[in-house]
Amino acid sequence: MTHPNITNGWFKETETLWPGQAMTLQVTEILHQEKSKFQDVLVFQSANHGNVLVLDGVIQATERDEFAYQEMIAHLPLNAHPNPRKVLVIGGGDGGVLREIVKHDCVEEVTLVEIDEAVVKAAKKFLPAMAVGFQHPKVKLHIGDGFEYLKNNESSYDVIITDSSDPVGPAESLFGETFYGLMRKALLPEGIICTQGECPWLHLSIIKDVLEHSRKVFPVVDYAWASVPTYPCGMMGFVLCCNTPGRNMRVPTRRFPPAFEAGGKLRYYNADVHQAAFVLPQFAKAALAL
Amino acid sequence: MTHPNITNGWFKETETLWPGQAMTLQVTEILHQEKSKFQDVLVFQSANHGNVLVLDGVIQATERDEFAYQEMIAHLPLNAHPNPRKVLVIGGGDGGVLREIVKHDCVEEVTLVEIDEAVVKAAKKFLPAMAVGFQHPKVKLHIGDGFEYLKNNESSYDVIITDSSDPVGPAESLFGETFYGLMRKALLPEGIICTQGECPWLHLSIIKDVLEHSRKVFPVVDYAWASVPTYPCGMMGFVLCCNTPGRNMRVPTRRFPPAFEAGGKLRYYNADVHQAAFVLPQFAKAALAL
Repeated sequence: MTHPNITNGWFKETETLWPGQAMTLQVTEILHQEKSKFQDVLVFQSANHGNVLVLDGVIQATERDEFAYQEMIAHLPLNAHPNPRKVLVIGGGDGGVLREIVKHDCVEEVTLVEIDEAVVKAAKKFLPAMAVGFQHPKVKLHIGDGFEYLKNNESSYDVIITDSSDPVGPAESLFGETFYGLMRKALLPEGIICTQGECPWLHLSIIKDVLEHSRKVFPVVDYAWASVPTYPCGMMGFVLCCNTPGRNMRVPTRRFPPAFEAGGKLRYYNADVHQAAFVLPQFAKAALAL
Repeated sequence: MTHPNITNGWFKETETLWPGQAMTLQVTEILHQEKSKFQDVLVFQSANHGNVLVLDGVIQATERDEFAYQEMIAHLPLNAHPNPRKVLVIGGGDGGVLREIVKHDCVEEVTLVEIDEAVVKAAKKFLPAMAVGFQHPKVKLHIGDGFEYLKNNESSYDVIITDSSDPVGPAESLFGETFYGLMRKALLPEGIICTQGECPWLHLSIIKDVLEHSRKVFPVVDYAWASVPTYPCGMMGFVLCCNTPGRNMRVPTRRFPPAFEAGGKLRYYNADVHQAAFVLPQFAKAALAL
């Protein structure tokens, strides 16, 4: 197999959204490649980062560092919520976010809505440590459009997590005001949403727009970030919005027992990391008025 | 001009210390290249990151994101110290750390000891926003070996900052126990040191070694980090050690006035960032016993 992003044994990320810079990873073997109905799906085995999932030329997850992103996008909203029982994931077809959500015993049901079944199939075959999330008895998988799903499920969820790719291609509409309005309607009282929030080093203006329209829809809006080496600039942000006026999502409402935190089942997140994640570099704090 | 790290208009970082991954930056023009007495010195103009300084194939600073590193390695130790008046910088030949240090009015004198004059000359010519640090009347430049300099300057400094390259090549000895012992002796009572501390995603065992031998030399040892996109994995750590038993360097002893913090002269650091920088991802916290 060959792929346009792979030359001389190295994968080079498509740079459209971050001109002039590109992460490269050494490739051992191309495991899977297809043009799905929605996007270019590539999985390769890398020399030092385990198997790597790439959509439309952009790294989505490597087995080496995916835990940072998955833990943060799941545990930030879930531990900010007093008692999350019903959770919806939009996107997240690799299953890694599911794996994290079911670490919360109080969660009774998780539904994942992924538009592209090809991603789920590729993950189940080549990213078993992430796709393990699909095997949990609390998890339901729905292949379909997140927009449509939200319209048909008002007042249904305590937490909604949008684990999407970037705002070009199939995920573009997931960054718009309409989508945030639909998420708000699908929440139960005290509900919280958490979405992939791009990177302040690269996309301050996109993030500003998202925060601005979120503030029209939700009474509480905040922004956190994590270090994820194989995402552009090594930083990934998260937009968090809450249905409850006055709720401070920066301090966890619930926390994992310290023995659980230190027991190896969490590799990035802990209660201190939760709080520190909301502290932004000065340039981002100023630009985002946070 | 040509350079072995530049092909088809893109610079690709040498991957010796982080096998299987390499940052690439688009090059507009090679501005300077030489084999100095100590290392390969390259400066290029990039498409989107301003001018870039590279030593032995490894990115040292880009004009786009250097402020994150320079602010943190300077302000963490300086604001942890109650009254820093005399400061020593070892390495840091681009001048950026000097630019940050002189933002503290209490500092009376800064000496920078750089082993490779070629770096200083290249910075003065091609990185003026960093080299501006050399122009300040409080700053003295000494071209020479940091080891030798420390031996001849016992009990002289409130803060010592080691802004070195990685522990291969000319900076290797700067990561050893002997060097930490010499820094300790060169400190005044209440003195603090801060050194470039590599990246927990890549070099936990190097960091463990450095912290272990630091603890033999200093009563207080700690570790912080910052997001710096063009360093490997986008994260850079800092080792901080203090002469004063019981001092908590995580909370700033002094802070910039809020108007200064928000006034545009700081782009990464603020007092909240100072505290959050010491919160490590769980895997690093566990491995480093912090």
